[in-house]
Amino acid sequence: MKKINAAILGLGVVGGGTYDILKTNKALISERTGCDIEVKRIFGRRHRDDVPEELFTLDYEDILNDPEIDVVAETLGGIEPALSFMVRAMNKGKHVVTANKAAVASGWDVLNSASRKNGVQFLYEASVCGGMPVISAIRGNLSANRFLEVRGIINSTTNYILSKMAREDKSYEEALRDAQVMGTVERDPSSDVSGMDSANKLCILMALLFGKHIPPEDIPRKGITDLTREDMAEAGADDQVIKLVARAWLEDGELRCYVRPERIGKDDPLFLVSDEKNALIVNSDMSGINMFYGNGAGSLVTGSAVAGDILTIALTGGR
Amino acid sequence: MKKINAAILGLGVVGGGTYDILKTNKALISERTGCDIEVKRIFGRRHRDDVPEELFTLDYEDILNDPEIDVVAETLGGIEPALSFMVRAMNKGKHVVTANKAAVASGWDVLNSASRKNGVQFLYEASVCGGMPVISAIRGNLSANRFLEVRGIINSTTNYILSKMAREDKSYEEALRDAQVMGTVERDPSSDVSGMDSANKLCILMALLFGKHIPPEDIPRKGITDLTREDMAEAGADDQVIKLVARAWLEDGELRCYVRPERIGKDDPLFLVSDEKNALIVNSDMSGINMFYGNGAGSLVTGSAVAGDILTIALTGGR
Repeated sequence: MKKINAAILGLGVVGGGTYDILKTNKALISERTGCDIEVKRIFGRRHRDDVPEELFTLDYEDILNDPEIDVVAETLGGIEPALSFMVRAMNKGKHVVTANKAAVASGWDVLNSASRKNGVQFLYEASVCGGMPVISAIRGNLSANRFLEVRGIINSTTNYILSKMAREDKSYEEALRDAQVMGTVERDPSSDVSGMDSANKLCILMALLFGKHIPPEDIPRKGITDLTREDMAEAGADDQVIKLVARAWLEDGELRCYVRPERIGKDDPLFLVSDEKNALIVNSDMSGINMFYGNGAGSLVTGSAVAGDILTIALTGGR
Repeated sequence: MKKINAAILGLGVVGGGTYDILKTNKALISERTGCDIEVKRIFGRRHRDDVPEELFTLDYEDILNDPEIDVVAETLGGIEPALSFMVRAMNKGKHVVTANKAAVASGWDVLNSASRKNGVQFLYEASVCGGMPVISAIRGNLSANRFLEVRGIINSTTNYILSKMAREDKSYEEALRDAQVMGTVERDPSSDVSGMDSANKLCILMALLFGKHIPPEDIPRKGITDLTREDMAEAGADDQVIKLVARAWLEDGELRCYVRPERIGKDDPLFLVSDEKNALIVNSDMSGINMFYGNGAGSLVTGSAVAGDILTIALTGGR
């Protein structure tokens, strides 16, 4: 059986989930791909007793210079050093998969040109909408279509906070505090609540769908921090809900986009998308409307997308 | 630029849509794939003035024996001769894509073994849920998951009839007649209304998700022909709708399945799936719930899935 060796950069929430999936579903994965996929190295400090000590290294050169490592799965988060790590891996002829929306959005051109130049795959399904296979659908079976519009709820944290505000008549601060106590929201939620996380994901979607890379900081953006209990109540009285919506569309040949809170009515498929769920509606010239709905965050959920990209590399052998 | 030559078998609703998409979006497709994809031959009798006469042939050997043809797109419908045509094309080293659920469901083993034996791709996205990329998601990014359940509305004709019955208080016969006048339903709708079309698609989904090929005729099945205006009214009075549901799931390690009309409540995401729309909910161990919603039928819609499979072959070069 063909062997595929992977290195995981960062055994945190997503990297840990990826490791667990590859281990738990090992037999199933071998059967489906015809490959034995093994995690050979992990970049980071050991903090889990169930993961062998010899896998860990704090020296990235150990991974770069190991010719047996075929795929690097980057789950460190943040722009640097993740971005440089990915480019260096591709320059060494290794395929790269990542869950890192900030690094992909900011390094779009350099990452894709490293992939082309070195003839290795660069896959980033996990960077948008967690476990939902939206990126591979757009790059794959939908790719005979001209895309017209994309619109969705693509950040789980803010959707959870807004759902709590609407359902329990809480202020933004109360809902945020509750979510932090529950562990649903990170200690520093500023990237989520400012809309920056959604802007990073929308940047990636626009580059794919419309072939234009608009830096995330140039996307018109409004977060959810100003929303009041009264705003939610007013919307509710009109049978509406307020959601953080990311949208990009062509208008008279111009690409337009924004991330902002919007009122959503009952006839809109986004109306029912609550709590940590995400939804993305892609409109195209031939296939029409395609909506994806699922889990946008979580260790195993996002790990499923990272692991799926590694399996894709195993199946296609690396073009 | 790399050239990919395709043959289309049958220039009907789906084959014609595929031809139109490859022509209309030719420049876009070249840009995305780096390939010039051309329809070199069409199996069938010429009936469209806008398609060059020299493309058509009524002798399948002309296609089989043309070494320049890389991909055969089968859109004839029906089990034979479609099934034999596909196997013979793979035996000649050609990749095959198809929209034909009856042939894929019935010939699952023979088609997949011809693909393996000859080292060519066999792709069938268009056979389930028209333009929605469900098959490629299951075979692709979701493939690190163990699947637990699939459930959905996967036949457009019956969903259209049931939506009309519920909305306009019509009998089954009246709604069917209206739909036939509108051209939404085929002259012979027996495969749709008996649930057989859904059973074919469920057979394909089960083979993929659970690795078990259960012949479509062995799937417990009830169609929509017995449903009355009173059934719809009773459901409506309970804030429910009746939908033709296809479902397969694991229960105590056993695979169970059916196709039958069911009452759907307001909390069920299938509640809002009306008219010609399809929806499929896939539940898996790692990614959890993934719902796909979109257009399940139509010339360009289903053609989009066929064309998408041809592009996939162009992109992966044929493993």
